[in-house]
Amino acid sequence: MNIDTAELPDPDDAEDRPAPADRPAPAGNPGWLSEDELQFVRGRLPVVYVEAVPVRLDGLGQVVEVGLLLRGTPDGVMTRALVSGRVRYGETLREALFRHLENDLGPMAFPQMPTTMCPVQVAEYFPMPGITPYVDDRQHAVSLVYVVPVTGACDPRQDALEVTWMAPEEALSPETLDELPGGRGTLLRQALSAVGC
Amino acid sequence: MNIDTAELPDPDDAEDRPAPADRPAPAGNPGWLSEDELQFVRGRLPVVYVEAVPVRLDGLGQVVEVGLLLRGTPDGVMTRALVSGRVRYGETLREALFRHLENDLGPMAFPQMPTTMCPVQVAEYFPMPGITPYVDDRQHAVSLVYVVPVTGACDPRQDALEVTWMAPEEALSPETLDELPGGRGTLLRQALSAVGC
Amino acid sequence: MNIDTAELPDPDDAEDRPAPADRPAPAGNPGWLSEDELQFVRGRLPVVYVEAVPVRLDGLGQVVEVGLLLRGTPDGVMTRALVSGRVRYGETLREALFRHLENDLGPMAFPQMPTTMCPVQVAEYFPMPGITPYVDDRQHAVSLVYVVPVTGACDPRQDALEVTWMAPEEALSPETLDELPGGRGTLLRQALSAVGC
Amino acid sequence: MNIDTAELPDPDDAEDRPAPADRPAPAGNPGWLSEDELQFVRGRLPVVYVEAVPVRLDGLGQVVEVGLLLRGTPDGVMTRALVSGRVRYGETLREALFRHLENDLGPMAFPQMPTTMCPVQVAEYFPMPGITPYVDDRQHAVSLVYVVPVTGACDPRQDALEVTWMAPEEALSPETLDELPGGRGTLLRQALSAVGC
Repeated sequence: MNIDTAELPDPDDAEDRPAPADRPAPAGNPGWLSEDELQFVRGRLPVVYVEAVPVRLDGLGQVVEVGLLLRGTPDGVMTRALVSGRVRYGETLREALFRHLENDLGPMAFPQMPTTMCPVQVAEYFPMPGITPYVDDRQHAVSLVYVVPVTGACDPRQDALEVTWMAPEEALSPETLDELPGGRGTLLRQALSAVGC
Repeated sequence: MNIDTAELPDPDDAEDRPAPADRPAPAGNPGWLSEDELQFVRGRLPVVYVEAVPVRLDGLGQVVEVGLLLRGTPDGVMTRALVSGRVRYGETLREALFRHLENDLGPMAFPQMPTTMCPVQVAEYFPMPGITPYVDDRQHAVSLVYVVPVTGACDPRQDALEVTWMAPEEALSPETLDELPGGRGTLLRQALSAVGC
Repeated sequence: MNIDTAELPDPDDAEDRPAPADRPAPAGNPGWLSEDELQFVRGRLPVVYVEAVPVRLDGLGQVVEVGLLLRGTPDGVMTRALVSGRVRYGETLREALFRHLENDLGPMAFPQMPTTMCPVQVAEYFPMPGITPYVDDRQHAVSLVYVVPVTGACDPRQDALEVTWMAPEEALSPETLDELPGGRGTLLRQALSAVGC
Repeated sequence: MNIDTAELPDPDDAEDRPAPADRPAPAGNPGWLSEDELQFVRGRLPVVYVEAVPVRLDGLGQVVEVGLLLRGTPDGVMTRALVSGRVRYGETLREALFRHLENDLGPMAFPQMPTTMCPVQVAEYFPMPGITPYVDDRQHAVSLVYVVPVTGACDPRQDALEVTWMAPEEALSPETLDELPGGRGTLLRQALSAVGC
């Protein structure tokens, strides 16, 4: 069994990988889509996503470090990524955000969940460039973006090699922002701006 | 031809009524769903919505009046509603918001579109009550909510009988909030709170 | 030595009590005002305040309890209060917010400081009623309001008798909102609305 | 009579120039400070400011142009500035914002006032650098920052030479951001990020 189609804006996020077309959705979980179904809905509806910028805070709540996932694409290029994933049918935004944080940062990372689900930014991804700054060639996605303080040890699971922590100034440098594909450099700049960086 | 299934959280919003099952989607518009398709996707994915509270402002930007749609249900009960509707595949949030404002308030109403698409509230509608305050028995919807100043004359199209303008205190009274079904009274209170009412 | 003029919107908050008129400001601390100075500046400039609604969260970040300070006025009336206090000259908003949280909730309460200092509400207090919903007969104050998750044990210092924890619905009931003087019931409703309550 | 001390973060904003020390405050207006009084309070309390980034929108509310004031300093250096000014005693934030927009953009500019006074950013200016990104050597100021759509003709009064309109990308370029003194380049980047630029 070979699963090679990722479901998330981030092409290497394995957690939401669809089941193969010949495997039915787990009983009672209509939010689990077969690959065919996923292909179909992706072409008919905008898909809801959550994304998160993990940060470390000082004692007064100021952001002192920003965490970016480091990933290698199949052809060996290194890219940076945010925590990101789809919201399933029947799942609340909080549940989806928590699930993707745990998937991407590991079980020993303790996210400080936001008190409000009003996002710091809404990113609209389209398959075709030029409509917004954000591109996802697999789908039209509406992504709610949060800045999430994290304590504990981050041990990325799935396809990420590591979480790189850096000062906000380094995260905001053109070099770093350019390492995020699909317009997510702009998104990172917007999210950090919202928390005073 | 009889269309009796509305697509929106608001059950009487005709604009997004699905095409009947036997009519194909208009060529080149994958966002237009047949009734069968809509039924299918509604059970598999959260659907993206935008909602708006129309308001009138004084010269300094303070809300002085709140506009609520008045609707009669098929069985003759009067209810209040917000401007509301689905975001189609390929459509930006701004386009969807503008389209639904025009549909619900008429072409002579001039909405002052928000500068940011960060909503004042995110309402998560589920078919089953108790998960959040918001219920929509047709679907799981994630709705981005805005407060939109409107000038000009509101002449509701579709199934709304009228737009009723009232002082913020009246809109926030328990009597008015109770007239909005599906938890939208809570939503109206939250949206008006965000603009200092 | 008798100090009977409190400096905060909350009349019983002792922390910011001015020094008596005959005692100079502590050396090097121009933000510490004598009573005469405080009287003077209060009549000439709007004073910057921070206010906080302490809350307890569940594991997904949802507010499950709201903390209100219980105070007795000199004439024996019980009132509810938010955490509140002045921002001193040379002090950042974060420092002032942390200081007042510690003063009002005690040293064993651990506030989860906000990542952004953009408040959920700005309350403008005026000595004369009718300009805004908020009244403070001592001054014109511009108050930045936050919702602050708190863990640990709250042991109110100063003049508060206790911190009462209650469900968000109880905090939002007309009975509770009416127990907060000077328009702070409206403020509490707005702040809780911003976090989805 | 020579007035050479401006009162605003922007050193050339004449509107809020203090009255000379020998002239009493206009009767009944305690918010009007003599130069001596202003000097005194500036050293004792944080001063409340409002700042605005004027923008032009397209029909869907998206920012298409950003307006920056162009000013010459007394020694002939050109700098960029935001609309900015102090909030007087007894004045609401809305009144102050409107007053400064009119002062800085002229009477033929029509600002679309924000529906909420929750700012897109709070800038804390200190006389000493290093505490925050924002510096104002005259005072400790807490500034509430807004993005304000403007229609009509901008005809800067006071000391500004002109309002320069530019695309958001140009406003966000390092070259432009560097032309704003006192950390306001960071502030402009944050404010534009908040509206999706």
